Amino acid sequence: MAEFNVDPYVDLYARRTSGMSASEVRALFAVASRPEVVSLAGGMPDVRALSTDDVIEVVETVLAEHADAALQYGAGQGTPALRACLAALMNEEATEADADDFVVTTGAQQALDLIAKVLIDPGDEIVVEAPSYVGALSAFSAYEPRYMQIELDDDGMIVEDLEDALVKGARPKFVYTVPNFHNPAGVTMSRSRREQLVALCREARIPIVEDNPYGLLRFEGDREPTLRSLDPHNVIYVGTVSKVFSPGVRVGWAVAEPGLLQRLVLAKEAADLCGSSFTMLVTERYLSGERWRGNLERLVSMYRSRRDAMLAALVEHFPADASWTHPGGGFFVWVTLPDYLDTQAMLAAAVERRVAYVPGTAFYPDGRGRNKMRLAFCYPTEDDITEGVRRLGLLLADEQELYRSLSG
Amino acid sequence: MAEFNVDPYVDLYARRTSGMSASEVRALFAVASRPEVVSLAGGMPDVRALSTDDVIEVVETVLAEHADAALQYGAGQGTPALRACLAALMNEEATEADADDFVVTTGAQQALDLIAKVLIDPGDEIVVEAPSYVGALSAFSAYEPRYMQIELDDDGMIVEDLEDALVKGARPKFVYTVPNFHNPAGVTMSRSRREQLVALCREARIPIVEDNPYGLLRFEGDREPTLRSLDPHNVIYVGTVSKVFSPGVRVGWAVAEPGLLQRLVLAKEAADLCGSSFTMLVTERYLSGERWRGNLERLVSMYRSRRDAMLAALVEHFPADASWTHPGGGFFVWVTLPDYLDTQAMLAAAVERRVAYVPGTAFYPDGRGRNKMRLAFCYPTEDDITEGVRRLGLLLADEQELYRSLSG
Repeated sequence: MAEFNVDPYVDLYARRTSGMSASEVRALFAVASRPEVVSLAGGMPDVRALSTDDVIEVVETVLAEHADAALQYGAGQGTPALRACLAALMNEEATEADADDFVVTTGAQQALDLIAKVLIDPGDEIVVEAPSYVGALSAFSAYEPRYMQIELDDDGMIVEDLEDALVKGARPKFVYTVPNFHNPAGVTMSRSRREQLVALCREARIPIVEDNPYGLLRFEGDREPTLRSLDPHNVIYVGTVSKVFSPGVRVGWAVAEPGLLQRLVLAKEAADLCGSSFTMLVTERYLSGERWRGNLERLVSMYRSRRDAMLAALVEHFPADASWTHPGGGFFVWVTLPDYLDTQAMLAAAVERRVAYVPGTAFYPDGRGRNKMRLAFCYPTEDDITEGVRRLGLLLADEQELYRSLSG
Repeated sequence: MAEFNVDPYVDLYARRTSGMSASEVRALFAVASRPEVVSLAGGMPDVRALSTDDVIEVVETVLAEHADAALQYGAGQGTPALRACLAALMNEEATEADADDFVVTTGAQQALDLIAKVLIDPGDEIVVEAPSYVGALSAFSAYEPRYMQIELDDDGMIVEDLEDALVKGARPKFVYTVPNFHNPAGVTMSRSRREQLVALCREARIPIVEDNPYGLLRFEGDREPTLRSLDPHNVIYVGTVSKVFSPGVRVGWAVAEPGLLQRLVLAKEAADLCGSSFTMLVTERYLSGERWRGNLERLVSMYRSRRDAMLAALVEHFPADASWTHPGGGFFVWVTLPDYLDTQAMLAAAVERRVAYVPGTAFYPDGRGRNKMRLAFCYPTEDDITEGVRRLGLLLADEQELYRSLSG
């Protein structure tokens, strides 16, 4: 994809494409995939833990029993049997949902895209967390919203700030949140914040989009109720099998009230007619037995050890004036550095020292977050995590010394 | 998906959703799938002709050799190896394309969606054929264009009409066409029309979107050059493996100039991050050998016989004042009935008589086409086609008699 100097279509692009830029996360994938680089950047689940024999058995069964269906077009909404499996998965987090209220999507990402497509007119305000999932910002930005950003603390979204904004007259189209093991912040919304958010949005008639990819990846402590379970009628739930099974099958979903759901299904059909019948049948079959539970237990234990390795390495190697979150699950630690450090400017030097991360600016629509970074502990081994954090710590020490010598 | 009387979000929907309505094709799928109904409606390829053993072998090889990659996230653009396979497929129609210029999409449908997303601002004019592929109209309509419709005859789009419109000052964002074995019209654009269209659009600097799902399904006669091969720099090519392999893998693609391509890749990532690595690897493997050629030969022979069965049955059973196209490939015959017959109003009676088709109105954005119908010969057996056309012929005779008795 060489960029020509003269683009013959330069006058023809839609206005929304001016907001399209190559995400820092994506651009990093190329660099960070070199074997000598310890990547703390990508949020890929470690599918190497998945039993290939299990998958082969599942696929063979699907093709032996349903080859014609697997190779044919399917229903835009997804099959009732798969939707029932996904409803059962939500039940693992004590969340009831009717299989009729689901639309199966190409990963959770497409659910976010379709929700935005159905709800956002250019200039509409929407609420996102600060920081927020970079993929959600990409999906939403294509529909040209204005962003209202609500800060997070260790208990998740600071709902009081949202309440203040509503009192002052804001009327956002929806509130987007990742309440469990936030991407990128690693924090989890407290029970009282959940109740507060749900009550506030119900009162104001503002739907909540609850994005919950990591809920089942809890390392310790008690589960918090999903927002959907607290208010089924005002919460649009977004889920995915990427973290409990495989992102390669591209199976996610949204659950919504009937009127909205019907529009989401129509938008899904307009976007790609239907998902892959093949991978939907494979996913249904994989989730039907009990094998996924054993896999999930292995994953949780593995990710917990990696989280521990990262937190221990941060204490050992990071400067005293840095701070970071302590995730109780999920994939990410969110680091705040002293104000004078710029993680975006520092990235090239980091890669040169064979370690990668995602700069904080990727997670804000407005260029904030320059002294933040997201560190992912999901994919590298414990030893690599320790070594990667050590390399970063050395870089930070050098950067701090440089700063002090220049300003001293 | 029961529709409630009161939709709590009714004030929140984006303007584009007002244009979203359940497509007639989709609504028909439920009815027409009952076993007693001969469906001449759906445009599903007959994947029963595909060797399940071939597919199982391909899938096993992919999982044995590339399980981790198959189950992981992939590149938004698709892998270089798959793009090279798709480029080779285009070469079968004497069309050169560089694998770097491809974006792999969730079927051709997503390519149409992304092209519209990148190019259409609300109110922009775009050119479609009259009639036009219903899925393209759904994809485009989400971006709120104005449609300029150019009629077809037996030689495809009447390019003179487009030229007249451009002379009068029209400046559409792009021209969308299905030049080979048109859906729904069954006609193929002649060589001279192709040259005329390509020259006109190049001169006017209006990109052409060439959608070519059926090009390799030619029953007789010589291949016409693709528009892309006539003008690589001004034609955005859209392809799919749905008709030569399987729609269940959801692998399509677009080929475009670098500047546009980069935006399509970003739009793809915003829409669903990436396609299924699993089905992309399966598709790559399936297309790598020579097995797909044997499958395609079987398909062409099978579809040709079905086309023959349909044309023969139409001569035998349809009224003398009906006319229809004579497709040289693809899936569809397009029937024009006397003006006083309404295929939409007649559909319920047809299904009652155990035969289904798609009413012509589905293929126009403005309610035209009431006396037209699309008949698909791709999926039912020859006997079922003959019987289905017979049932339709009896219905038409009854409808005509009713009309004459009422107006006589």
